Formats: sequence, C-alpha cells, structure tokens
Amino acid sequence: MAFKTIEWKGDAVVLIDQTRLPNEEVYIECRDHISIAKAIKDLKVRGAPAIGVTAAMGVALGAKTIEAEDHKEFIAELKGICDVLSKTRPTAVNLFWAIDRMMAVARSYNDLDMEGLKELLEEEALAIYEDDICINHQIGVYGKVFIKDNDTILTHCNAGALATAGFGTALGVIRAAWEKNKNIRVFADETRPFLQGARLTAWELMKDKIPVTLITDNMAGHFMKKKMIDLVIVGADRIAANGDVANKIGTYTVAVLAKEHGIPFYVAAPLSTLDLTLKNGEEIPIEERDEREVTQIGGVTIAPKNVKVLNPAFDVTPNRLVTAIITERGVVTKPFLAGLKELKKGCK
Amino acid sequence: MAFKTIEWKGDAVVLIDQTRLPNEEVYIECRDHISIAKAIKDLKVRGAPAIGVTAAMGVALGAKTIEAEDHKEFIAELKGICDVLSKTRPTAVNLFWAIDRMMAVARSYNDLDMEGLKELLEEEALAIYEDDICINHQIGVYGKVFIKDNDTILTHCNAGALATAGFGTALGVIRAAWEKNKNIRVFADETRPFLQGARLTAWELMKDKIPVTLITDNMAGHFMKKKMIDLVIVGADRIAANGDVANKIGTYTVAVLAKEHGIPFYVAAPLSTLDLTLKNGEEIPIEERDEREVTQIGGVTIAPKNVKVLNPAFDVTPNRLVTAIITERGVVTKPFLAGLKELKKGCK
Repeated sequence: MAFKTIEWKGDAVVLIDQTRLPNEEVYIECRDHISIAKAIKDLKVRGAPAIGVTAAMGVALGAKTIEAEDHKEFIAELKGICDVLSKTRPTAVNLFWAIDRMMAVARSYNDLDMEGLKELLEEEALAIYEDDICINHQIGVYGKVFIKDNDTILTHCNAGALATAGFGTALGVIRAAWEKNKNIRVFADETRPFLQGARLTAWELMKDKIPVTLITDNMAGHFMKKKMIDLVIVGADRIAANGDVANKIGTYTVAVLAKEHGIPFYVAAPLSTLDLTLKNGEEIPIEERDEREVTQIGGVTIAPKNVKVLNPAFDVTPNRLVTAIITERGVVTKPFLAGLKELKKGCK
Repeated sequence: MAFKTIEWKGDAVVLIDQTRLPNEEVYIECRDHISIAKAIKDLKVRGAPAIGVTAAMGVALGAKTIEAEDHKEFIAELKGICDVLSKTRPTAVNLFWAIDRMMAVARSYNDLDMEGLKELLEEEALAIYEDDICINHQIGVYGKVFIKDNDTILTHCNAGALATAGFGTALGVIRAAWEKNKNIRVFADETRPFLQGARLTAWELMKDKIPVTLITDNMAGHFMKKKMIDLVIVGADRIAANGDVANKIGTYTVAVLAKEHGIPFYVAAPLSTLDLTLKNGEEIPIEERDEREVTQIGGVTIAPKNVKVLNPAFDVTPNRLVTAIITERGVVTKPFLAGLKELKKGCK
C-alpha cells in the first residue's frame, strides 16, 4: 500500500488523519490511550476493523503506564483504560471485541510480572493488527469470485485499507479482483454527511489506479435503473446473529435499491464484526452524531441557523436484502443464523 | 410570503439569489434577457415553474429592446431572444412552455404596432406570473386532503415558493394543510449536490414556522423503516404523457423507498409541467451538470483532484411508483395517460 492507516511505534501509534483527507495526507502520533480514544471519537481513525486495531493498541499503550503492585491491581487499572476506549463509539462491535480480547489475555496470564504483562499486551495488539491484514486478504480470496470481468461495483462509505489495518474488506474484495486483472470499475457513493466515499474511497482507489467514479448518494438508484451497476459490496459495523447488518447510514437504502433492480448485495466483514449476542439488527445501538456534521461541510454552513437535524451514523439492513456475507472463513448465505454460528466457532 | 422569489419592475426583473441562501438574503436585478438567461443557467433562480415565469419575463424584457420595422422582423428578433433563453436548461419543460406561450401571443397579434406588441408581451409575462401563484394555491386545495393530522411528510429538493412565483407546488400542498391548522412535520432531504433541501426548503419552511427536520438524502430509507414518515410529496420538472416524472436527482430513489415501505408518493405540479409530446420518461432529456457541484461545496474541495464524477441533475420516476399527480385542475391517478390528457384539454 502507498500509505499506512495505523502504525505501531513501540511508544506511540501513528494514524493517518482521515478527517484531513483527501486534501492533506497528515499523520498524527498518539502517545497514550486518551489521545487514541479522542482520535477514534473524532473520526481521525474510523471503520470498524481499524477502530478495533487502534483500540487494541490503545490498551497496549495505556498498559505501559500502569504502576501496579500485583496482577489484580494491574487488571483493575487496565479496566479503567479499557473503559475510556470503549466509550468512544457505540455501534462498531470490533471496538468491544478488541478490548475484550486484550482484557482476556491480561486476565489469563496471572503468573506473569508487570513487565511481562505489558509485553504480552503489546504482542497481542500487534497480533490483532497482523491478523486484520491477513483476514482482509482472505476475505478478498473468497469474495473476488463474485466479481466478473467488466463489472461495475457500487460501494458505500469506505470499507477499504483506511477502514482496516490494510487492504480493506469491501475494497479488499475489489482489490483482489483487480489483482486478478479483472477489468472493473467502482462507483463510490460520496456518503453524506461525513463524505467517506468522496474523501476516502475515491482517494485510496485512485492511489491504486482502480477506476472509480464518484456520485452523490441519491444517484445510485438512477444508475441502477440505467443498468450501469452490476453488484454492490459494502462493509459492516456490526452483524447480528440472524445476518442483519449495521453499516454506515445509507447502506439500507442501497440494499433496497439493489433488491428493486435485481442486483446482488454483498457484505464483506471479518468475523470480529459478528455479534452473536444480538438476535437481530433491531438490538444494535445506533450512534447519533453531532448535527454540525450535517449543517457544515469543511467549515462552510449549508443550512439555516438553528434548523432541527437528525444524524444517525448507521442504519440496519435486514438479512432478507443481503445476498451473502463474505468473511475470512468463507461465504454465508441465507439462512444466515446457522452459517454464521458455524463460522464463528473457535474464533478468537 | 416573507420574501419574493421573482418580481417584475417594468424595466427589470428582481430575483432572490438562491445560490446565496440561506446564509445571505440577496436580491439581484436583471435588466435584459441575457442576464436572465445567465441567472437561470447559474441556478440563481431554479425550480421548473419559477424558470418558466422568469423566462417569460426575460422575453418581455428582451422585446423592449427590439427595433423592428414590421411584425415579421419583430418576430424574427424575438425568436433570437427566445433562443438564448431556451438554451439555458434542458429538462424543465416549463421553460419551453413559457417561451412558446410568449411567442404564440406575439405571433397572433400581427395587427399591433411594435409598442403594442411590447406591452402585450409584458402583460402576458405578468399573467404567467399571476397564474402561477393561483395555480399553486389550487394545487394546495386539491392536495391538502392527502395530509392527515400528525402526519410527517418527506420532501426532496425544493418545490416551494422559491421554485415558483409563490406558495409552491409540493410545499404549497404542505402550506395549504398547515393553514388548515393540521399538526404536521416536514422531513427535508438535503438534496445533494446543490443542497436545495438544506439551503432552500429548510429556509422557507422555517420562515413560515412550519416544523422541518433536515436529513441527508441517504437517511430517508432509515426513517421510513422506523415508520417516521407517512407520505412523500415532491414537485416535477417534466411529466411525460404516461405519468413518468422527471424531477431532481434522488427523487427516483425516494419513490422506490416509498413503495418498499407502503408509503404514498405524490407529485404536485402545474399542467405546464406536463409534456404530452413525450410518450414516456425515457424521452425526457436529462441535464448533466458541472462536476464541481459534486467535488466542491461552498468553495471547499471534498474529493480528490481529478476524480471522475457523474452529475445528472434529474432522474425519472416511472409512473408505477407514483400514487397520484396533483394539478391545478384536479388529481390524476393510474392509469395516468387518459387522466392527464383530459386535464390538459383547453389549457394554455
């Protein structure tokens, strides 16, 4: 890749500042878990898998500052650090999954000394990082078969290298097809209000020279009707046990449009995005974000002062609209419940 | 109304500059048909009925400058003026309708002297202006029955006072219901790329104290699924004989979503928007606009340099998705062809 989304530096985490793309490619250095939490909350790093990896590194960074007498005290302090990180964003389950994984490791090695524990947590965070890249390549392997030569793929938001440790989930599938020399084209929804499609997806596909056309969200239906889109691939922020998918606001609309036009709708996500504790998508908490994301763009006010605004950051696509869920362990189709449970068995 | 969209001043036309709303309420004065054409092209005035009214006034202004020897020469010069005005925007048929109506009047009074012709054209433009306001009130009369107490209405783009000589078409129906003291709420799609919903619809509804909530285009499906929207009302830029409706890009997606959720989808438009020469919506020319409307917002660049962009300004909603078309002469439902033809009979 021509850039690194997340980089571990031993005593710091370096993140590409995604709020300043595409106009500036700026990297920020987070030296503690507080600044990591702020970077997640402010969307400097975003995308469910990337949030998970960054949070894990935040736990490892935070652990380095613990001055505990024994394992019990260490765990108590570590829990405080995890609490700060877990209160950043509510919808992407990878955040909680990564934090839980870090806590579980620290808890299970109760015979290690403090330095040993800190090293172990650093290793675990790096494993989560490395795993994520491998997982995305594996998703690409399973997913690329759905893309035929000369296909045009619509994607929404950014489920790319920028949303992960690298390679991407939805864009990973597209990259895998591209690397097989398939002649493909991507339509990127701009993805209001935060414009992840216009700012991030267009940027990273152009970096890789994968043909991309930017459209506003409300154009997708028009181009589907004109038979200019062959399939849809998106990422996910949380998948319930029944296969309902929470993803960036607007995903549900794309899924309804795909159904109307008989276009397949694929979700590409690691199994860490799967939340088997939730029966269906109605139970997924949906983050409501600041109304200024809607009323201002790059500091420019685009709506009347004091206008009432709603700004849900995600929506839920019911499983009936999902053609298949592409994971690192294989592809699941309807009915999702059994297939997802089977794949998740034995996962970390 | 608290503002005037279009005002005839005898030797000039005053327009509220819609590109500067909502941050500034600025009026521009057009003293000839060239500046009128530019105002239409640059979207300083927009909305199918408003374009028609403004163009008619442009013809009347242009006519004042004609120095012809006889009626034939006058008509030839007037045709040149009309050509300039008709080349501004291709989709809204009201533009051509208004210009044709002005030309027809000038042609039919071949016994008048030049001054008489100029006066006649001024009167005709003013009649088109006055008619438009009456028509919108009448659309409101017929349409308000579809809005029940406590309804939430979704609208897309701006089909309000700003899109007409006054009162509005879709927003006229909403205003008529509001004036009957119905407790209603409007959800306004922001309507990318030009943000007519965020900038204009929210602004004019707030001026009238009609409760309005601004959402991004891609949120409409989410709120329909949550049963927060009871009906959809939009305007139209051109309606084909079979009831297919061209309207602002994104309208088709809203119509698909409405069908998916069993929500009625109404189109409110004057009969001047009806184009019986076109069998169906596929024949309606769709304007492709400058890509900078997508890549820049208020001068801020939101996409990578040189990204490929598509920017169709309109889409076509097939008649099967339209619950009813509300006109000044009554409401038409499926099958539209006969009903629309019947209503159009004897119309100017």
